[in-house]
Amino acid sequence: MTLLHIIYLVAITAEAMSGAIMGMRRGMDLFGICLLGTVTALGGGTARDILLGHYPVGWIANPEYLTFTIGAAIVTGFVARHMHHLRKVFLIVDGLGLVAFTVIGCGVGMEMGAHPSIVVLAGVITGIFGGLLRDVLCNQVPMVLQRELYATVALFTGVLYVGLLWLGIGNSIASLVALCAGFLFRMLAMTFQWKLPDFQGKEIRGLD
Amino acid sequence: MTLLHIIYLVAITAEAMSGAIMGMRRGMDLFGICLLGTVTALGGGTARDILLGHYPVGWIANPEYLTFTIGAAIVTGFVARHMHHLRKVFLIVDGLGLVAFTVIGCGVGMEMGAHPSIVVLAGVITGIFGGLLRDVLCNQVPMVLQRELYATVALFTGVLYVGLLWLGIGNSIASLVALCAGFLFRMLAMTFQWKLPDFQGKEIRGLD
Amino acid sequence: MTLLHIIYLVAITAEAMSGAIMGMRRGMDLFGICLLGTVTALGGGTARDILLGHYPVGWIANPEYLTFTIGAAIVTGFVARHMHHLRKVFLIVDGLGLVAFTVIGCGVGMEMGAHPSIVVLAGVITGIFGGLLRDVLCNQVPMVLQRELYATVALFTGVLYVGLLWLGIGNSIASLVALCAGFLFRMLAMTFQWKLPDFQGKEIRGLD
Repeated sequence: MTLLHIIYLVAITAEAMSGAIMGMRRGMDLFGICLLGTVTALGGGTARDILLGHYPVGWIANPEYLTFTIGAAIVTGFVARHMHHLRKVFLIVDGLGLVAFTVIGCGVGMEMGAHPSIVVLAGVITGIFGGLLRDVLCNQVPMVLQRELYATVALFTGVLYVGLLWLGIGNSIASLVALCAGFLFRMLAMTFQWKLPDFQGKEIRGLD
Repeated sequence: MTLLHIIYLVAITAEAMSGAIMGMRRGMDLFGICLLGTVTALGGGTARDILLGHYPVGWIANPEYLTFTIGAAIVTGFVARHMHHLRKVFLIVDGLGLVAFTVIGCGVGMEMGAHPSIVVLAGVITGIFGGLLRDVLCNQVPMVLQRELYATVALFTGVLYVGLLWLGIGNSIASLVALCAGFLFRMLAMTFQWKLPDFQGKEIRGLD
Repeated sequence: MTLLHIIYLVAITAEAMSGAIMGMRRGMDLFGICLLGTVTALGGGTARDILLGHYPVGWIANPEYLTFTIGAAIVTGFVARHMHHLRKVFLIVDGLGLVAFTVIGCGVGMEMGAHPSIVVLAGVITGIFGGLLRDVLCNQVPMVLQRELYATVALFTGVLYVGLLWLGIGNSIASLVALCAGFLFRMLAMTFQWKLPDFQGKEIRGLD
């Protein structure tokens, strides 16, 4: 049970809670919020495993992860009314989760012997696809495509982690540095509302 | 050709017809309704096979299934105007399909040597993901996340089937009991409009 | 480096540009348009590879494809304002891409030893799923399900290609004939606005 593993379990619990809350706001029933919470928490790793052909998929090899996500969604169903007081805690845990998912995803990519660029992408996909699938199921354009430095944080964390390993740094140190630097980046991006350029493109004429 | 297989073929035909009708209501063309009907009918098994790494995927191993779904969608294109008279027949066949898909999906999970909780989930995914993907393609929040005891029926059927096998009951008896009990549950749920709690959560404040 | 391969690289560049423009029109940021462009360009081949269990997925085996799609999306971010002048060029390249994707997809299906109907479908999926996934991420009903002879062109190209091979024609000739005939069909379909029947079904009563 490494530090990374503990962060992972805390993070999937928090992601499942935030997915469940979004489901409740859409009027979903108990099953809906359990599924949406689980997709939010485990969808990133699942997408990565399917794209890489890395079988068995994470939660199929470790069904106990589902206990965390489904349990978190059900608890959320009953206490959600009071959870906005915890908004800041969630944003912090979500930031931790983003970088932890990324480092774990990079690890899976390396285990599969993928090209370094694919290793980084495996990390980014693990970090962001849960939220992306959640938004598709909620019938909205995925937030990760529109605002804030979220995917960028995953990209930065992945590049840093793979770069440190390439420089010959040991895995524990490289993970720890990438986690801390990525988390710090995310916190700064939120605090100062850093954004990527978005081109004010709504009036651009399409090609179709 | 077992009873379960016959129910399966009848069910994919009916699911393809209901998918085709939803496509027509969205103004889709002939190709669109064929694809939407096929996704509705075969999407659940496809999602299950990809998640489990169970290759070849069902309809790729048995392309004749496509004849049923595409044929059903095309016929629907020409007779849909008169099909609402058959609404009750469809709801009954859809209920049969839900439980048959679930039992078949559990069977695939067991064949892959998965953990019992994953076997049940493989059944639930087979039962509900076709409709879920249909709704995503129609740009709406999946109905299965919002109303009625639909996923719950799949869960009940899967748990009952796996439980009976675990008790040492033979496969034919276990399938038959799970099919009948699950189907009865679905019919009762529709008749009495049983629902899961939905938390009236629309006014809940989000965490993002 | 065959002619087909060159057409493929030009086509993924053009598809990534058209995806990026759609992303800009939705207010997506730089990351969003890179991801949307890449999904539009490579989503069809990815869906085909996952459905067929053909690993590694194309862009994971050849990460240099990502250079084309991400590069194209970034360039588009800066010049999109002027690109509608190139609308006709894009439609032509898109038509070329559609038939090239289809022929390449059929090739992968044959390599996997699939049934001829699945070989054709592998081509069609390669041709159309990129645009379909792009539209899902943009929160709209996929255009390919609604208008124009687009999927039909892929189907025609695939059937022609597989049919010519079945008749004993060599692969180079069969590819070339299928590419030219499919492209001509697409150009004619656009010029004369050929459509599949769409049943004016919006007033049809649903079954649910």
